[in-house]
Amino acid sequence: MTYRLHNFFRSSTSTRLRAALNHKGLAYDYVPYVLRDGETRTPDYLAMNPQGLVPTLERDDGAFMMQSLAIIEWLDETHPEPPLLPADPDGRARVRALAYMIACEIHPLNNLRVLFRLRDQFGADEEAQKDWFTHWVTTTFDALETALASSDRTGTCCHGDTPTLADICLYAQVWNNRRFGIALDSWPTIARIYAGLDKLPAFAAAAPPEQPDAG
Amino acid sequence: MTYRLHNFFRSSTSTRLRAALNHKGLAYDYVPYVLRDGETRTPDYLAMNPQGLVPTLERDDGAFMMQSLAIIEWLDETHPEPPLLPADPDGRARVRALAYMIACEIHPLNNLRVLFRLRDQFGADEEAQKDWFTHWVTTTFDALETALASSDRTGTCCHGDTPTLADICLYAQVWNNRRFGIALDSWPTIARIYAGLDKLPAFAAAAPPEQPDAG
Repeated sequence: MTYRLHNFFRSSTSTRLRAALNHKGLAYDYVPYVLRDGETRTPDYLAMNPQGLVPTLERDDGAFMMQSLAIIEWLDETHPEPPLLPADPDGRARVRALAYMIACEIHPLNNLRVLFRLRDQFGADEEAQKDWFTHWVTTTFDALETALASSDRTGTCCHGDTPTLADICLYAQVWNNRRFGIALDSWPTIARIYAGLDKLPAFAAAAPPEQPDAG
Repeated sequence: MTYRLHNFFRSSTSTRLRAALNHKGLAYDYVPYVLRDGETRTPDYLAMNPQGLVPTLERDDGAFMMQSLAIIEWLDETHPEPPLLPADPDGRARVRALAYMIACEIHPLNNLRVLFRLRDQFGADEEAQKDWFTHWVTTTFDALETALASSDRTGTCCHGDTPTLADICLYAQVWNNRRFGIALDSWPTIARIYAGLDKLPAFAAAAPPEQPDAG
């Protein structure tokens, strides 16, 4: 199987999928899109992904996959080593819950189309958008810090000492936070885990500045 | 194992988990919270669930589980019959993608704390909140309708003829839409699937009006 990754360097969900592909040792062709220019709203793109969102993973059997977390679960099922979820159900539930704290409570509120909507419906300027963005990061990172710092299952990574789906979401979100200059000082466990992940080649190579379309 | 479900009748994520528990034939004690009164922001609740969100599933082994989709995956792993995900990886990826379209692109933007934030930060009145809510439902339901109507894997349910995680999210979201009176006329496939689900006792019993705390 070969892969084409339709994505955007700064997109947090694209960063997640790049880290997962790298972690599994899977090569892919990189196909960039400029979100601000509507390049994912064309008929051709919508035929691949009816939401008009990145990323889309195109497979050489003709399938187009959407929704980063669904694709990562599929990668973990079809390419089990190295794993991105623990083997035990309780561990899997913990890792998924940590991942969804970010994927369901921060990212959906802070992506580009939401910031555009705030501008269009409420006249939110850059400062108001930053307040909004920071509010949702802070609300969930406070809870995530508590969840991580209070559990003996937290290791050098979110769950033990090897990266999981939770680390993938954490790493991508910390990169996304830089858009509005949010520092990690209030969240020492998150900061420690992020710093460790950023030393792993699979993660570092997925970071936005490393991509061919980085401005 | 016995369960206590800490939840709120109108919460969409609570509806999801009730439907999943019912579908698996698992009984639970119902513990209601009034979100508007801050009952999930108390120290006791935050000790169970650091996000202060519903639902929380309490197990008799002392574990507290959070994030509805993580709990439902756990239920499916520990109580496999009847399944809530297909057996094949491609089917599982499709069901998860459909579920995440709702869980990552609609619900996070439209829950109560977000509507409160719109009111507090931008002065959004009920009408502006309705516009916001309706915008995100419409954006994703348009794409979901396309994804469902264009696939031969769609059956009486989102994927084949038995309920999956995607149906659980769809059913809960359609209930949530009623908060602002959103009709399903524009989305005939979603409407058809919803109507079928509403005839299943496991789903119908999970609906908000059926709960003990329904006002």
